[in-house]
Amino acid sequence: MQTISENRSFGGVQGVYSHASEACGCEMTFAVYMPPQARQMPVPVLWYLSGLTCTHENAMTKAGLQEHAALHGLAVVFPDTSPRGEGVANDEAYDLGQGAGFYVNATRTPWRPHYRMYDYVVSELRALVLDAFDVEDRHGITGHSMGGHGALTIAMQNPDLYDSLSAFAPIANPTQSDWGRKQLSAYLGDDEAAWGIHDSVLLMGEKGWKGDVLVDQGASDQFLDLLKPETLSEAMARRRQPGVFRMQEGYDHSYFFVNSFAGDHVAWHAERLI
Amino acid sequence: MQTISENRSFGGVQGVYSHASEACGCEMTFAVYMPPQARQMPVPVLWYLSGLTCTHENAMTKAGLQEHAALHGLAVVFPDTSPRGEGVANDEAYDLGQGAGFYVNATRTPWRPHYRMYDYVVSELRALVLDAFDVEDRHGITGHSMGGHGALTIAMQNPDLYDSLSAFAPIANPTQSDWGRKQLSAYLGDDEAAWGIHDSVLLMGEKGWKGDVLVDQGASDQFLDLLKPETLSEAMARRRQPGVFRMQEGYDHSYFFVNSFAGDHVAWHAERLI
Repeated sequence: MQTISENRSFGGVQGVYSHASEACGCEMTFAVYMPPQARQMPVPVLWYLSGLTCTHENAMTKAGLQEHAALHGLAVVFPDTSPRGEGVANDEAYDLGQGAGFYVNATRTPWRPHYRMYDYVVSELRALVLDAFDVEDRHGITGHSMGGHGALTIAMQNPDLYDSLSAFAPIANPTQSDWGRKQLSAYLGDDEAAWGIHDSVLLMGEKGWKGDVLVDQGASDQFLDLLKPETLSEAMARRRQPGVFRMQEGYDHSYFFVNSFAGDHVAWHAERLI
Repeated sequence: MQTISENRSFGGVQGVYSHASEACGCEMTFAVYMPPQARQMPVPVLWYLSGLTCTHENAMTKAGLQEHAALHGLAVVFPDTSPRGEGVANDEAYDLGQGAGFYVNATRTPWRPHYRMYDYVVSELRALVLDAFDVEDRHGITGHSMGGHGALTIAMQNPDLYDSLSAFAPIANPTQSDWGRKQLSAYLGDDEAAWGIHDSVLLMGEKGWKGDVLVDQGASDQFLDLLKPETLSEAMARRRQPGVFRMQEGYDHSYFFVNSFAGDHVAWHAERLI
C-alpha cells in the first residue's frame, strides 16, 4: 500500500492510498479518514460508496463527513467506484465502465477481468483496511446514488459483515431503471435472474435488513425517474422493515444534499456501532 | 444578475450568480449561501475571500461553511479571485493574473483595465448583494491565504464597513514575500510606497483593527516561508491588538485545514454580528 497524501483534518488524518488490487487486477486508489480517537483505541469503520462518475475524491472533499466522524470517533473509507487504467475496459458513456462499477462482479466480456467491485469492497479492501489501520472489525455502510444502491445491496447480502446501514438517494430498483438495466445487462448478461441480488427493492422483499435503516431522498432530485425512491419506500413499508425513509423538501441530487444530512447519517451509524 | 445554479443546502440555498461588473469590466461569477433564517428576516453577511488559483467554487464546495452559517444564521458571499475572460490580461504563472487578483486596484499596464478586485469586493459586489439578497447591511470578512490577506487588509482599511474579522493562513507580509512583491510590483508598480496599504503587518503596525481578530495557521503548512505568520503574530502582540492567533499543530495549507476550523470562524463572526 502506498501513501499518496495525508492531511490533518478535524484532529484526525484524511489519507489517500493506493494498492495493487487482486480483485480488480489493477492499481486501486482509496481514501480513509481516521478520527483523533483512533490514536487511543481502534474505532469502527463507516464505508461510504460513491455514485456514477465519482472517484474516492468527490465525497472526501465535498460530503463533509470528517467533522462528524471526528465528533463520534468513526473511521470513514471512501473506495473508488470502478477499476481504472489503460488496460481496463471502458465505455464512452458516463454510466458504464470506468466510474460506473455498480458494485457487482462482472461475468461478461469485456468487463469480467477487472470489474469486481463487489468482491473488492466486501472482501479485499475490507481486509486491507483491517490490516493497515487502527480500526475495529465492526462496520457500517452508506453511499450516494449508485453508492446508495451499493450500500443497501451489499449490506442486505452480508448481514454478518455490517452492523449499520443508510443511504443517500439510492438507485433503489436498478432492475427496472435505465440506471441499472443497461449496466446489469452489460456486466452480468441478459439473464435477469442474475440481477436480483443487486436490486435493493428485490432484496428488501426477500430478506430485508437485520437492523434499522436510514434513507434520505431529495424531493427535488433531478433523477427521481431513475432512482425510483417510491419503490424502496413501498418495499420497506410492505416488509415492516424497521427504519426511516425521509423525503427532504427542496433538496436535489448534488453533494449539497449529501453534505446537509451527513451529520445525521454519521450519528446514525455511530449510535449503532459504538 | 443571472442565476447559474441554486441548490438546497442545510435548509438554505447555495446559489451561484453572474453579473456584468463595472469595476472589473467583465462578467463576474460569485456564490452566495443564504441560510434558512433569511426567509424570516434579513441576516448579516460573512465575506469569504479565496486564495491563489481559486474561483468562487473551491470554498463553496470544500470549506464546509454552510453547515455553520445555517446554524448561526449568516449569509456567506464567495467572490471570485480576479477578473476573467479572453479580453482580460493574464500570465502563465499560477500566481499572477487570472486567479491571482490579490484584492488590489491595479494601476499598471496591462492589468489596470480589469484588475480592480479591491473596489469590486469593497463596493460593487457589496452593493449588489445588499440589493439582491435579504441581508442586513452588517458584514464580517474572512479568507484563506491570498484571501486571508484580502480580508485583513480590506477590513483594516475600512473599519466602518466591517464588524468582524478573521483569517485562515493569510499571506501576512506580502511586501516582504515572493507571494506579494511580484504581484504588487506588477499591479501597482515598483514604488513600494503604494504597497503598504495592502500589507496586513504594516497595517497592523499603523492602525490595527477596531475589534478583536481571529487568525488560524497550520503549523505544518507547506508555505510558511511565503505566508510569514510570525510577522503577523509579532505585529499583533506589539500593538496589543485584541484577538487570538492560533498555531494549529499538524495542519497544512489545504481545505482540510480550512474545513477543520470553519465552525470556529463562523461562530466567531456570528457572535460579533448578530
